[in-house]
Amino acid sequence: MHVIAGFTILPLGAGISLSPYVAEVERVLAGTGLTHELHANGTNIEGEWDAVMTAIRACHETLHGMGVPRVHTVIQLGTRTDRDQRMADKVASVRAKLRP
Amino acid sequence: MHVIAGFTILPLGAGISLSPYVAEVERVLAGTGLTHELHANGTNIEGEWDAVMTAIRACHETLHGMGVPRVHTVIQLGTRTDRDQRMADKVASVRAKLRP
Amino acid sequence: MHVIAGFTILPLGAGISLSPYVAEVERVLAGTGLTHELHANGTNIEGEWDAVMTAIRACHETLHGMGVPRVHTVIQLGTRTDRDQRMADKVASVRAKLRP
Amino acid sequence: MHVIAGFTILPLGAGISLSPYVAEVERVLAGTGLTHELHANGTNIEGEWDAVMTAIRACHETLHGMGVPRVHTVIQLGTRTDRDQRMADKVASVRAKLRP
Repeated sequence: MHVIAGFTILPLGAGISLSPYVAEVERVLAGTGLTHELHANGTNIEGEWDAVMTAIRACHETLHGMGVPRVHTVIQLGTRTDRDQRMADKVASVRAKLRP
Repeated sequence: MHVIAGFTILPLGAGISLSPYVAEVERVLAGTGLTHELHANGTNIEGEWDAVMTAIRACHETLHGMGVPRVHTVIQLGTRTDRDQRMADKVASVRAKLRP
Repeated sequence: MHVIAGFTILPLGAGISLSPYVAEVERVLAGTGLTHELHANGTNIEGEWDAVMTAIRACHETLHGMGVPRVHTVIQLGTRTDRDQRMADKVASVRAKLRP
Repeated sequence: MHVIAGFTILPLGAGISLSPYVAEVERVLAGTGLTHELHANGTNIEGEWDAVMTAIRACHETLHGMGVPRVHTVIQLGTRTDRDQRMADKVASVRAKLRP
């Protein structure tokens, strides 16, 4: 089952600057080989359900390994059976409708 | 890794009444043996990371099996290494602070 | 426009124990007169769109006033035009379908 | 109070193709003058709290006006008092840490 997901990972009890942790998350994701994309409020990622969930779990474990006592994550994900769709298709489909 | 999670599952392209789908999700969760709790905007659930994620995946598969072409889910989850905490502890801890 | 909402408010840079902040949020909400309900991963609330948003804004301001430098909130909300629905109806509607 | 937000708007009971609705949301946002950015799972937006919330409310009203009976939105937002930060700063700050 292919999933298009986005997630925001929040280290709690680890101070106020989150970018060192988000950078580490990006490194973890780069190691998975999954398509992923950083944006201002999180990271989009896609792949097989289990691969995506294993990647997010690895991010939690990595942050805890860096000494973060509490990690909160918000995940949004979509699956569909009517057709095959990729992350890039979603944005392209909206942009096509916005073209004058 | 123990996780306290909450999720909201939204069937798309399946009409406007969501309660038949949410009821089916509750049945799926009941079959997992995990602690779970329905509320007005979703369901809270806790357990080992993989067990919780497998349960949510089963919900997606069940809704697709009912003919829903597109399923969108929002998951929030927390893990912590500083101490053992259960869902019931979280609410109790806030209520204790609200007592006059 | 009536809205049924749920939100999770996360103080960042304020240590690891969140319950003192969540308790304060509950006090702010109690002062609004809006129907609201604490659960293990957040608080459900309903009312007119602007009243609900003003309440959540007051929670942010209150936490900043307590010295929290950074506040992250996740809100889910639904509006509908087909019929009038209240928070309590949503849970009752699912439970009715689960009755043997 | 400046807020950096992201939101995902889901029309329910309006069929399976969401891009016509997301395109209309983009048009509404373009009319607000607020900085905003479409990505694969939603739209990021920033500005004063009330301006951002009014923009999201206008999106709900627009979709209902297009005949969508039920609209569900997920919003994530952050406010901070320790320093001034813009959406672009967040991504730049992570990328700087990833540079070899």
